[in-house]
Amino acid sequence: MKPYLKEHEWSIIEEGFDPDKHEISESIFSIGNGHMGQRANFEETYTGSSLQGSYMAGVYYPDKTRVGWWKNGYPEYFAKVLNSTNWIGLRIVIDGEDLDLNEAKVSEFVRELNMREGYLQRTFKAELREGKEIKVKATRFVSIVQKEIGAIKYDITPLNFDGTLEVTSYLDGDIKNKDANYDEKFWDPVATSLSKDRASVTVKTKKLNFHFCSTMETQLYRNDQKLDVDGVGSEEVKYAGITYKAPLVKNEATTIYKYAANVTNRDHDEQQLETVSSKSLDGAVKKGFEQLKEEQASAWKQKWLDSDIVIEGDISAQQGIRFNIYQLNQTYSGEDARLNIGPKGFTGEKYGGSTYWDTEAYCLPFYLATSEERIPRNLLIYRYNHLEKARENAKKLGFEKGALYPMVTMNGEESHNEWEITFEEIHRNGAIAYGIYNYVNYTGDKSYLGEYGIEVLAEISRFWEERVNFVPQKNVYMMLGVTGPNEYENNVHNNWYTNRIATWTLEYTLYVLDFLKDTDPDLYAQWIEKLDLKEEEMKKWVDIIDKMYYPEDKEQGVFLQQDGFLDKELLPVSKLDSKHLPLNQNWSWDRILRSCFIKQADVLQGLYFLNHEFDIETKKRNFDFYEPMTVHESSLSPCVHSILACELGYKEKAYEMYLRTARLDLDNYNNDTEDGCHTTSMAGTWMSVVQGFGGMKISNDQLILNPFIPGQWKSFSFKVLFRGARLMIHVDQEEVTITNETDIASDIVIHSDKIYLKGNDQITVTH
Amino acid sequence: MKPYLKEHEWSIIEEGFDPDKHEISESIFSIGNGHMGQRANFEETYTGSSLQGSYMAGVYYPDKTRVGWWKNGYPEYFAKVLNSTNWIGLRIVIDGEDLDLNEAKVSEFVRELNMREGYLQRTFKAELREGKEIKVKATRFVSIVQKEIGAIKYDITPLNFDGTLEVTSYLDGDIKNKDANYDEKFWDPVATSLSKDRASVTVKTKKLNFHFCSTMETQLYRNDQKLDVDGVGSEEVKYAGITYKAPLVKNEATTIYKYAANVTNRDHDEQQLETVSSKSLDGAVKKGFEQLKEEQASAWKQKWLDSDIVIEGDISAQQGIRFNIYQLNQTYSGEDARLNIGPKGFTGEKYGGSTYWDTEAYCLPFYLATSEERIPRNLLIYRYNHLEKARENAKKLGFEKGALYPMVTMNGEESHNEWEITFEEIHRNGAIAYGIYNYVNYTGDKSYLGEYGIEVLAEISRFWEERVNFVPQKNVYMMLGVTGPNEYENNVHNNWYTNRIATWTLEYTLYVLDFLKDTDPDLYAQWIEKLDLKEEEMKKWVDIIDKMYYPEDKEQGVFLQQDGFLDKELLPVSKLDSKHLPLNQNWSWDRILRSCFIKQADVLQGLYFLNHEFDIETKKRNFDFYEPMTVHESSLSPCVHSILACELGYKEKAYEMYLRTARLDLDNYNNDTEDGCHTTSMAGTWMSVVQGFGGMKISNDQLILNPFIPGQWKSFSFKVLFRGARLMIHVDQEEVTITNETDIASDIVIHSDKIYLKGNDQITVTH
Repeated sequence: MKPYLKEHEWSIIEEGFDPDKHEISESIFSIGNGHMGQRANFEETYTGSSLQGSYMAGVYYPDKTRVGWWKNGYPEYFAKVLNSTNWIGLRIVIDGEDLDLNEAKVSEFVRELNMREGYLQRTFKAELREGKEIKVKATRFVSIVQKEIGAIKYDITPLNFDGTLEVTSYLDGDIKNKDANYDEKFWDPVATSLSKDRASVTVKTKKLNFHFCSTMETQLYRNDQKLDVDGVGSEEVKYAGITYKAPLVKNEATTIYKYAANVTNRDHDEQQLETVSSKSLDGAVKKGFEQLKEEQASAWKQKWLDSDIVIEGDISAQQGIRFNIYQLNQTYSGEDARLNIGPKGFTGEKYGGSTYWDTEAYCLPFYLATSEERIPRNLLIYRYNHLEKARENAKKLGFEKGALYPMVTMNGEESHNEWEITFEEIHRNGAIAYGIYNYVNYTGDKSYLGEYGIEVLAEISRFWEERVNFVPQKNVYMMLGVTGPNEYENNVHNNWYTNRIATWTLEYTLYVLDFLKDTDPDLYAQWIEKLDLKEEEMKKWVDIIDKMYYPEDKEQGVFLQQDGFLDKELLPVSKLDSKHLPLNQNWSWDRILRSCFIKQADVLQGLYFLNHEFDIETKKRNFDFYEPMTVHESSLSPCVHSILACELGYKEKAYEMYLRTARLDLDNYNNDTEDGCHTTSMAGTWMSVVQGFGGMKISNDQLILNPFIPGQWKSFSFKVLFRGARLMIHVDQEEVTITNETDIASDIVIHSDKIYLKGNDQITVTH
Repeated sequence: MKPYLKEHEWSIIEEGFDPDKHEISESIFSIGNGHMGQRANFEETYTGSSLQGSYMAGVYYPDKTRVGWWKNGYPEYFAKVLNSTNWIGLRIVIDGEDLDLNEAKVSEFVRELNMREGYLQRTFKAELREGKEIKVKATRFVSIVQKEIGAIKYDITPLNFDGTLEVTSYLDGDIKNKDANYDEKFWDPVATSLSKDRASVTVKTKKLNFHFCSTMETQLYRNDQKLDVDGVGSEEVKYAGITYKAPLVKNEATTIYKYAANVTNRDHDEQQLETVSSKSLDGAVKKGFEQLKEEQASAWKQKWLDSDIVIEGDISAQQGIRFNIYQLNQTYSGEDARLNIGPKGFTGEKYGGSTYWDTEAYCLPFYLATSEERIPRNLLIYRYNHLEKARENAKKLGFEKGALYPMVTMNGEESHNEWEITFEEIHRNGAIAYGIYNYVNYTGDKSYLGEYGIEVLAEISRFWEERVNFVPQKNVYMMLGVTGPNEYENNVHNNWYTNRIATWTLEYTLYVLDFLKDTDPDLYAQWIEKLDLKEEEMKKWVDIIDKMYYPEDKEQGVFLQQDGFLDKELLPVSKLDSKHLPLNQNWSWDRILRSCFIKQADVLQGLYFLNHEFDIETKKRNFDFYEPMTVHESSLSPCVHSILACELGYKEKAYEMYLRTARLDLDNYNNDTEDGCHTTSMAGTWMSVVQGFGGMKISNDQLILNPFIPGQWKSFSFKVLFRGARLMIHVDQEEVTITNETDIASDIVIHSDKIYLKGNDQITVTH
């Protein structure tokens, strides 16, 4: 599909209404605030193709697993993000005719996602039957200041007639998940209530007893005057609506304000939900739409101050990167350690679950560099809180000790059910350990290790200890039957990445234990006791570190993705006729598996994570070997390649890889954006700019920068919060300027030169 | 569950009614005739747990595939054996009370499957409400003489009262498959008709347009006198019934005869089904129940003359082996080359499909040795007729030429949907080639090769040619990403069995081409042209034969099941705590995969198939290496082990392995017989006796026997049809006696001694 969105620095803009693109736009123009979010559905009736989707963070449903052939150990349920009460509904009836863009003649349609200020706006003209024309302007946002509040301003102006407006403002809780495995509805009714101006609907999930209450108030205005109209209420099961009638006056805008307060028993007493939501609604109504919108703009201004990336000379790239940052910020705000970053955020329900290894491997760096410490720390705490479930998961799979974190989860329990992934893609455990390292390395907050980190690290280490097997005739440890990050290989022996991230975990755990022993012997002793950590275990870890087998080809100087990789027919992707691509749509699974083609960075993922361990020549040999065979059919692949390409000075390749992620959803590159946006891979795009083009790393408590700028750009700049200092790094073709926007001084290394940058100071160096 | 069936030489007998075992008995006491069959459901109402199942051979339904995660290349549908019109129904109402063994007090219940004469009989006393007692004797069979005819004789004797019988004899076509993926019904109504004594129901499948018409006639008798009772008909959608009323006289049996003729548009014109079935019914009714039953007994007598195995001194073993032979004979009669041997025969619907590699690998030898040539030949023709679909299947998986037969099929199209099996368990292709070899070797019918065989062989060879890949640095061909017969390993490289059966196919195909060139140059030329077989292709085959890589451990002198097998922790099953067994119910799939434990013969399957290629020491080393690691969690495993153990002189092991299959269903060994019997593995039991204990092989057009007798047995004897001669081989602890029951002389090798056995002669040799 040809890109259809207008390029703009700060907004996503769709001009003209094309029903065929509506579901894609519903994904792209989604709004959210970390607590809730929704697809860019129309407020009024729409009978065309649409995925009505409204999601509350942390409210999920254990949907009965669907498989063709059951394997022992599969989870019974897949925890799914739950499509919830639709609170935006405004049925607009004009002179007896339902406004429906699938029926009306639509013109001057503009849909805009204003990312700078955080709202969705839509304007259009519609010609109804008998030639009646109206103009509509609908503005909507979910507040990032008051997380439970959503607000709509809906202006209707009749252009060539006087008439009557009948608007039914409603809450509809009779909602079904599109991805329900057995076509079931997941919500049961609890209560509905109606008063003159307000209605409330409370529903609860059929399992797990999540309660969700939405309360709304609707007001009609004309010429800044509140209209004194009496609403007529109607209730159905899981539904409440209030219908208002008002005259429509030619060329005068009638404005409908709708406020909703959406609360769940995750945050409030189950019995008090209606009261709480009504009280919350009071505050919002009192402030009114315009003030709420101003607060929203001001809060987003702060978000951008912390996390913006500016690209000059390439408006398309500018729009792309801002869209990614916007989505990340509206998906996860880090206030609530029970939440995580779902693969589609609030933009769709595909893939269910909320947490993949994407969080630690790709998302964490974004939040580390753009948010206060407590935000990424909450991502770690999330895993810490799931440790017991991860222990149970390991037990369920037959391990006597240790913890195996799930591949896909909502509440710590495994949801996924493909054996080659669920049971074998265990490298995720390493990423979770690496996340701890990454957090401590970035923030310098070593207290986390003694407070929480060591327990997670030790339990993951124990898992690796049991998962490897010693091969006496070769005097090595091996890891059999795994799937590495490259999911285009399944059930392989000795995936280099997995073997290495396993021993790395053991090394880091031993390092952390030593660190605790040195710095806080009492705490160390407590942990040793609590974890019942034996001397022999630690010795075993050392033995595994010493004797782990890593497949490699010494002649070519490359690490081998797994045993037997060189027995494949090795071909570059460029030799494949393009009709074969993407492989996952054209080749049967066995053909993909026995080919050399790589879905996403695997050995290279290891070189990215453990970058400091390998010299540049090693990285180069491996990059040169694997990159040509990589098809990047995971949206998480190009960013790692882009970052390594930057380090290796492969400028063209770096930019090519960057382009593959930057506008993935905006240009619907994978032809699946209607299902929702690729939220987690958006963090990869941010990484490409900051860690790739910016060359940012943290080492020895220093911020290291090795920027280079793609030839196509005039300049780019990014913000980094580093140990309290907010630094703006501006890179153009000649020089790099770093501005410290705070009082806090910072040690920085640019292109190997060590710089001390005082508070509120600026420094410029040439490339 | 403790065995509950009574031991008997010729019958399976259940004494006493236990509702908890009813579904198991419904499977075990199933009756069939190759054309149709059914579980041993009760004729009268039964409200307890039951799987009502009536199946017509070759009538199937493409049920929409159900998977958790779709893989490219999966079949859209799973072709399922179709549960069809229930024609046995007799609703028995006595003085207004429904006879229902779930409600009545049942005593003296005996259920018998008379295998010698081929019928099912049930007798019981039932106490109804108010203490009314009746005695019932119900006898039922499906005729192996007139395949469309089923007949029931149902005697009711009131023991302590006079009363009224109301019997509704019905046909119910509103049937649902228990294993429907989405709980759908697969049958649509076509027509019902009613006359005074007859009713007819025609239904058709919602897809593929299979039409099935069942017509019934019911008669009531007392004291050999036909009762003149008028039936009252009733029709519903897909249902027709006729209700008769008759007085019941104390201590006199009222007999209900029910005849049904079941026809499909597989055999008859769709428009004529009712006429055809009515005509067929005329003949049956005219003969009457007793004559039909006599014909049945006489036809079964001939079946037993050809295929019986007699074991003296072990009644349990005797019953077990006869049960297996009985099931095989009633599942597949070989009259119709469109049919094959379903995994559950007519005893249940689990696993769907009708054809697995079981047919060629396990079932073919039974039919070769016990039936006329045309019967096993039809099994080969079945595959020949599916060649075009196998070509399409290979294309669908990305191959440019060649044929890949499906893993599971009904009509030649693949049904199965697990990637590691559907796409990777390609050794099945080799078994199909081996089936041709086996047939020709056994029958001596080389004409088959030039008529049909060569086309299948060449297309399979082409598949192997494309499926292997050359590894230049090692100068070998390899086969990556397969699943061997041992399904407890998935996606392995260089499965020894698969590599070897592939090159064996190439060798045999080249041999057959040479044979044709020598014996019929014109025919050879025709095939070369038709197949467009190039010189380079054949050269490539030779190159692959020469350079195929076979994993082996030269030090230990064993073939390796696949690359990397020795990197596993090698443990005998005996070292496993029994709580882990069966592994497939206790271990998660990854744990099974990375363990050394073997589901079923794999390398040993190769040594069994290509027995003549390996010396006894090689077989011994491999058996000694693999057998201790084999868990036999496939019912197809122990037979191969038993046969090899016999050859190696491991008498105890051979008998132990024999016991594991012989009474698999009778003793519900796998705790799943309620789903149906393990029909195809029954042929493995036959193989254990004939090829194992009997040591029977065919080589150089000679029948070779190396019998040994388990110490537990007094004697055993089996029948073999070999090139027209029917030989009875009788083995006791001292000697072997071979009786030629026909006029045709035969060359036989016993214990390496060559013997010429004249027609109607007998010879005895001592062990």
